[in-house]
Amino acid sequence: MQPKQVKLLYAVDLAGTLLFAIEGASAAIANKLDLLGVMVLAFATALGGGLIRDVLIGFVPPNALRDWRYSATAFAGASITFFLNGFVQAIPAPLIMVLDAAGLALFAIAGTEKALLFDMPPLIAVLLGGITGVGGGTIRDVLLAKIPNVLRADVYATAALAGSAVMVVGRRLGLSPSVSVFLGGLLCFALRVISVWRHWNLPRLP
Amino acid sequence: MQPKQVKLLYAVDLAGTLLFAIEGASAAIANKLDLLGVMVLAFATALGGGLIRDVLIGFVPPNALRDWRYSATAFAGASITFFLNGFVQAIPAPLIMVLDAAGLALFAIAGTEKALLFDMPPLIAVLLGGITGVGGGTIRDVLLAKIPNVLRADVYATAALAGSAVMVVGRRLGLSPSVSVFLGGLLCFALRVISVWRHWNLPRLP
Amino acid sequence: MQPKQVKLLYAVDLAGTLLFAIEGASAAIANKLDLLGVMVLAFATALGGGLIRDVLIGFVPPNALRDWRYSATAFAGASITFFLNGFVQAIPAPLIMVLDAAGLALFAIAGTEKALLFDMPPLIAVLLGGITGVGGGTIRDVLLAKIPNVLRADVYATAALAGSAVMVVGRRLGLSPSVSVFLGGLLCFALRVISVWRHWNLPRLP
Repeated sequence: MQPKQVKLLYAVDLAGTLLFAIEGASAAIANKLDLLGVMVLAFATALGGGLIRDVLIGFVPPNALRDWRYSATAFAGASITFFLNGFVQAIPAPLIMVLDAAGLALFAIAGTEKALLFDMPPLIAVLLGGITGVGGGTIRDVLLAKIPNVLRADVYATAALAGSAVMVVGRRLGLSPSVSVFLGGLLCFALRVISVWRHWNLPRLP
Repeated sequence: MQPKQVKLLYAVDLAGTLLFAIEGASAAIANKLDLLGVMVLAFATALGGGLIRDVLIGFVPPNALRDWRYSATAFAGASITFFLNGFVQAIPAPLIMVLDAAGLALFAIAGTEKALLFDMPPLIAVLLGGITGVGGGTIRDVLLAKIPNVLRADVYATAALAGSAVMVVGRRLGLSPSVSVFLGGLLCFALRVISVWRHWNLPRLP
Repeated sequence: MQPKQVKLLYAVDLAGTLLFAIEGASAAIANKLDLLGVMVLAFATALGGGLIRDVLIGFVPPNALRDWRYSATAFAGASITFFLNGFVQAIPAPLIMVLDAAGLALFAIAGTEKALLFDMPPLIAVLLGGITGVGGGTIRDVLLAKIPNVLRADVYATAALAGSAVMVVGRRLGLSPSVSVFLGGLLCFALRVISVWRHWNLPRLP
């Protein structure tokens, strides 16, 4: 990749971190946590998925600890949410949903990419893409003593897994890395947005 | 070991993974999780204990991520439980209990073996055997926002720890590895089965 | 450091482990866990923070698994609490609080020190000091299916983070390591004790 592209990707990654941090901080405030709890949930939601992935593939210290910009961004998200809460609450829910879908796609694709880079088998690379996308939200819900929402409703982790799978299959079929990434990310984003719009859910036994 | 024995052990290990996955998936269905939740709980229950052990001893990527057969088996267990639920529910509870005791013994012994291989001190090897046996079920209960059952009732983790301890002590006393493994596994299995049959519980303060 | 100092630090570290184990075991008994649950919560509370830190910085197997004295101490704490429960319950609450503040300061400082030793950036070293101090209690609360208390009330993690930050800043300003450690530890301890005494809490949104 060109240096310009690398810089762009890095900026997009930090933007996703900021958004996920704001969502984690909002959940903390809704559950009456104090300022420290808001900080911790922002950190966990934004960086938890990548932390789990990096520990599992053996990339320690994880990226989020090597580069202080990630935690600084997470704390910036927490601070904005806490100190400018009226402003954050005024963001329209559909906009948050669309941005979140974009963040999910980005995290899933980035996680799959890194797993492939570390020579994980294809099935595992798909799983690690999913974990990167939804691991942070899962830790957030566990810390809130709730069954993680991703296990119960919505097409969310499924969108991440589908996008990761398309990306891995694309590579195997000989598509160029950037085309594979684009197709996988697009599928994840579209599947997530459409599923919210059409109220799709996964099957569940009665 | 002979190649035949290695193959047998591997098959038994995958059988244990399948069984634990079915138990995790059943718990997910009982808690009204959707298909994705069923998959995740099957994966966590079947592979969680080994994942924690491998991360702690520094064997990363963990075995469950190096060899895709483990996750494929976990997902097979989840699929059987979800799509053939009538069939799975028809399995008699005592049979599940006995199979589960066998799986527990196998996981505990395998975990202890690996810990010793990585030069852990004896006490730690016993603990890691216990973690391998009950770690998956603990993660499952945490994801269901419940106090892990293993901390509250039954002689379950205790059976795993006792079997691991016997195995470690047997080695120290100079018994051959296979005799130690056999004695430890047998004790874990027998202790678990007898404790269910006789309604044994650990002491608890009032 | 002189060998004498190293021995003293090691003894103090084990004393902190014992105290945190007693607190974890007491929480387990209050929640009606059985003897195994008491052991597990003692272990998790006393050693969980250091385990997370060591896994994240890539120091595996973690210290608590390399040196069996740590788990032996945790189990000693659990046994004392379970078998001599009348004695443990007779310890005055203010004494426990002051000892706990000392343990928190010690764990935070030790965690920060180790993070710096592993070349973590300053901000990350502060976070890892906080995680070392409060990670064990957080795991304990998650296993009890409760929102971790540290996220909701009291100046506890905040004291750990403040102490770690002072220590890191002290080093940067060129103070000697032992002066930095002393100032950081003292701040953490004093902040914690004063906040309990004055009923301080962090801000929270309505």
